[in-house]
Amino acid sequence: MPTFTVFKGNESGAPKKETTSKPDELSGDQVFIRITASGLCGTDLHHRTAHMGLGHEGVGVVEKTGPLCKVLKAGDRVGWGYNHSFCGHCQECLTGNDVFCAERQMYGYADLDQGSFGSHAVWREVALFKIPDNISDEDAAPLQCAGATVFSALHMYKTQPTETVGVMGVGGLGHLAIQFAAKMGCRVVVLSGSDSKKEEALKLGAHEFIATKGKTELKISRPLDRLLVTTSFQPSWDLILPIMAPRATIFPLSVSEGNFEFPYMGMLASGITIQGAIVASRIAHERMLEFASLHEIKPVVQLFDMTEEGILDAMEKLDQGKIHFRAVLKPVA
Amino acid sequence: MPTFTVFKGNESGAPKKETTSKPDELSGDQVFIRITASGLCGTDLHHRTAHMGLGHEGVGVVEKTGPLCKVLKAGDRVGWGYNHSFCGHCQECLTGNDVFCAERQMYGYADLDQGSFGSHAVWREVALFKIPDNISDEDAAPLQCAGATVFSALHMYKTQPTETVGVMGVGGLGHLAIQFAAKMGCRVVVLSGSDSKKEEALKLGAHEFIATKGKTELKISRPLDRLLVTTSFQPSWDLILPIMAPRATIFPLSVSEGNFEFPYMGMLASGITIQGAIVASRIAHERMLEFASLHEIKPVVQLFDMTEEGILDAMEKLDQGKIHFRAVLKPVA
Repeated sequence: MPTFTVFKGNESGAPKKETTSKPDELSGDQVFIRITASGLCGTDLHHRTAHMGLGHEGVGVVEKTGPLCKVLKAGDRVGWGYNHSFCGHCQECLTGNDVFCAERQMYGYADLDQGSFGSHAVWREVALFKIPDNISDEDAAPLQCAGATVFSALHMYKTQPTETVGVMGVGGLGHLAIQFAAKMGCRVVVLSGSDSKKEEALKLGAHEFIATKGKTELKISRPLDRLLVTTSFQPSWDLILPIMAPRATIFPLSVSEGNFEFPYMGMLASGITIQGAIVASRIAHERMLEFASLHEIKPVVQLFDMTEEGILDAMEKLDQGKIHFRAVLKPVA
Repeated sequence: MPTFTVFKGNESGAPKKETTSKPDELSGDQVFIRITASGLCGTDLHHRTAHMGLGHEGVGVVEKTGPLCKVLKAGDRVGWGYNHSFCGHCQECLTGNDVFCAERQMYGYADLDQGSFGSHAVWREVALFKIPDNISDEDAAPLQCAGATVFSALHMYKTQPTETVGVMGVGGLGHLAIQFAAKMGCRVVVLSGSDSKKEEALKLGAHEFIATKGKTELKISRPLDRLLVTTSFQPSWDLILPIMAPRATIFPLSVSEGNFEFPYMGMLASGITIQGAIVASRIAHERMLEFASLHEIKPVVQLFDMTEEGILDAMEKLDQGKIHFRAVLKPVA
């Protein structure tokens, strides 16, 4: 059996280079990909001590396709994200919501022998996405999870161009959310702890910037119709609720433990929607790439080597909040 | 100035008969109504110790109309609910969501000198609703808040006839929700503590009944696309989440203090929507009455006298969970 390199988590928290095998012959719609770039996401930190292939913001070049592949061919540049498979027959799949398919195969729960940190990977064609020509490999990588997550939240829940969209947190997800919402025509308000990211947020397309730290009341020029929470912690809702418009929707997008807590009567009295959402279904992922290509939406990336040392360095910087704004790993020659 | 009778809350919690005055001449779109029936709602218990006119599920006959009234005339039977006024000009009013108007005048917060417990009341025409001929005064009363609340949650958030709707709690709101959802064509699943209300729930239109008490896992024939929570306490979400369909919507409809708490990752992974909702905007209230009339949807009522004794009796029975299923107060001759 042919083998390839993967980087797996382990007890120490420092990923180790290992080898996994691919089938001699690809079956079904399997695609064999040579990895050219991978983003590093907060979720990868959650799995760094698990013995599993890390990474889920992958980009690569198709080397070989299985007998049932219909769209891809050798040489195509492709990306993939959190979800590796879905059934194609259930209500969720039939309505374009395949990310909620009961048979989905999610990062961290399935295909644990490989990820996007490595030399190669084998994935199903249905979960691979052609990268538009005007998006580079390193720019495409953060779009596969961070970009897909924020775009899907905006797009699948029918954000209107006339809405005011709040983006809380200017990091891997937030800095892409600002760009997507701005290009959708929305008024974009960024909420961040301090003023340190103000200039950059405005350059990315934000119309208004609010520093929240130490504030007991927030001033805003127009209430928020949507709020994408991309911080790693939940905000103080008592501070946020007064700047939400009636019938506003809140998307808690970061991974968090325990319970989501929200002022009960405030939610009812203002008709607030709390919308659980996770990465993107296939249709949203495809539209995201098309939209990013048309509007030249690009992540701000910081490059690291796809080596044990490079991955560990990137992970530690991410853990310390020092990535500006998304770490991308590139294979070394 | 002419006067009329109202029943107000007071420190003792036993409502007292008092007198309030109406203007000599009605102004604007004011309407003077003789009250013929009023429902008793759980919210009234929250206000029983406040010195304010109680009751917000009113039905009566128009006695006189102000100079700007356009629709109503003396002799019309009308109902009213929680909201007494709205601006008519803001985004919420212009999109049919007037219950979220910033200038709304809500029970407990405005017009504290009168309610639906009393002999008469003066309300704006915009917040009054003609009662269809085939609905009696005592049946119409519980529709003004309980009925409007559950119908609006189903209707304004676009429930499809092909959906499975869960109704948690068989009381004032729940027993109407069962009927509305069933007549909308939905499969209706009732969740109740014990089996004691099973026969009646099925008679009201439920297709399935689940007793939850003591259960650590619930069996259901099809996952719920919607869940209306009409109990006075919040359910154990860990028990409920496994029977919710992907992208299901949960409506916490009862009044409750503190925070709404929900399993964070469960909400994201299943794409759950938590929908804050409150009573009904005018269009939903009108459609509710039309729908109830067409399908002969009627509350199950228990009658009490509109007297200090009758109100107190009804309130205490409601407090003890002994009302079957909605208390209605009727003036004594």
